[in-house]
Amino acid sequence: MRDIFHEELESITADHLKMTALVRDAIESATKALLNTDLQLAEKVIADDLEIDRIQHALDERTINIMARQQPVASDLRRLVSSLRISADLERMGDLANHIAKLARMRYPNKAVPAELLEVITEMGSAASRIVEKMAVVLEFRDTNRALEIDSDDDEMDILQRRLIATLLSSDWNNSVEAAVDMAFASRYYERFSDHAVSIAQRVYYTETGEFAPKS
Amino acid sequence: MRDIFHEELESITADHLKMTALVRDAIESATKALLNTDLQLAEKVIADDLEIDRIQHALDERTINIMARQQPVASDLRRLVSSLRISADLERMGDLANHIAKLARMRYPNKAVPAELLEVITEMGSAASRIVEKMAVVLEFRDTNRALEIDSDDDEMDILQRRLIATLLSSDWNNSVEAAVDMAFASRYYERFSDHAVSIAQRVYYTETGEFAPKS
Repeated sequence: MRDIFHEELESITADHLKMTALVRDAIESATKALLNTDLQLAEKVIADDLEIDRIQHALDERTINIMARQQPVASDLRRLVSSLRISADLERMGDLANHIAKLARMRYPNKAVPAELLEVITEMGSAASRIVEKMAVVLEFRDTNRALEIDSDDDEMDILQRRLIATLLSSDWNNSVEAAVDMAFASRYYERFSDHAVSIAQRVYYTETGEFAPKS
Repeated sequence: MRDIFHEELESITADHLKMTALVRDAIESATKALLNTDLQLAEKVIADDLEIDRIQHALDERTINIMARQQPVASDLRRLVSSLRISADLERMGDLANHIAKLARMRYPNKAVPAELLEVITEMGSAASRIVEKMAVVLEFRDTNRALEIDSDDDEMDILQRRLIATLLSSDWNNSVEAAVDMAFASRYYERFSDHAVSIAQRVYYTETGEFAPKS
C-alpha cells in the first residue's frame, strides 16, 4: 500500500513538472510576443493555456481520489493538500502568462512596449524564466535550499517592477496613458507570476521541513 | 461520528462567515478610505488584514485535522477540499481590499481618486459590497440560485472596470499618468475581488449539485 502511495506522489510531481514546463514556455513566449509584436506567438500562448487548465483539473481529481482511497494522515495528508495548492498556483501562473500574451494581441499590429521599456520588460521576462526554472528543481528534487533562493529572485522582480513604474511616472515619459496602463498591468502580471513561484517554493519547504521558510 | 462531522462542517462555515464579514468590512472601508482620503481608515484596513490571515491559517489547520481524523470519502471529502479553497479565496479578497487601502495611504494627504472617477469607483465599491453580501448568503444557506446570480453581478463589475479604463484613455483625461496607473490598479483589485467571490459561489454550487455552474 505504501509503495503504491509513493508512486502516486511521484506521478503528481510528474504532472506538476509537466505544468511547470508549459508555464515556463508560456511566460517565455508571452514575453517574446510582447517584445516582438508577434501575434501568432501570442495566440499560441492563449490557446495553450487551456492545456494547463486541463492538466490541473485532471490532476486535482486524481489527487482527491488518492486522498479518498489511501486515507493518508499526518505528513502524507499535508503533502496531498499542498499538491492541490501547488497545482492551483501553477494554473494561475499560466493565466498570468496568458494575460501578458493578451496585451500583445490587444495592441497588435502596434507595439505594446515603448522603446524605453524594452530593457526592463526583457529583464522581467528573464527573471520570470529563471524563477520558474529554479521552481522546477525545487519541485523535482524537493530542494529546500533552492526554495529559499527563490525568495531573493522574487525581490529582484519587485525591484524591476518598481523601476518600470518609476519610468512611467518620470517627467521624461512621453508615451500615451494607454501605454502606461498596459505596461503597469504587464509589470503586475510578472510580479504576481513570481509571487506564485515563491508560494510553491514555500509549500515544498514547509512540507519537507515542517517549518515555514524564513523571510528574506 | 457523523454528527460530530456535521458539527465540524458547520464550524467551518461559521469561520468562512466570520472571514466574509471581515472581508466585507475591509472592502467597504478601503473604498471609503480611497474616496475620502482617510488615512486612519486605510491604516485600519491594512492592520485588520492580519486577522483575516490568522483566521484562515487556524481554519486550514483545523480542516486538515478533520480530514485526518474523520477520513471522509466522496462528497464529504470534496466538501472539505472545497472549504480549503474557499478560505484561500477569502484570504485573497482580504489582500485585495488591503491593496486598495494601500493606494489611499500611498497618496495621502493627496486625493488618490481624480474627480471624474469618483462616481465609477463609488459604483465599483458598491458592486463589491453587493457581491460579498450575496456570497455570505450562498455560504450560509448553500444557496445555489444566489450562487448563479453572482456571475452576473461580476459581469457588472467588468463593465465598470471597462468604463474606468475608457475614462483613463479618453482624450479628455487631463490628470497625471500616476493617477491613471493608480486607478488602473484599483480597478484591477476590485475586478479580482469580484472574481474570487465568483469562484467561491461556483465551489458551493459544485459541492451542492455535483455540476459546474453554467456560464452566464
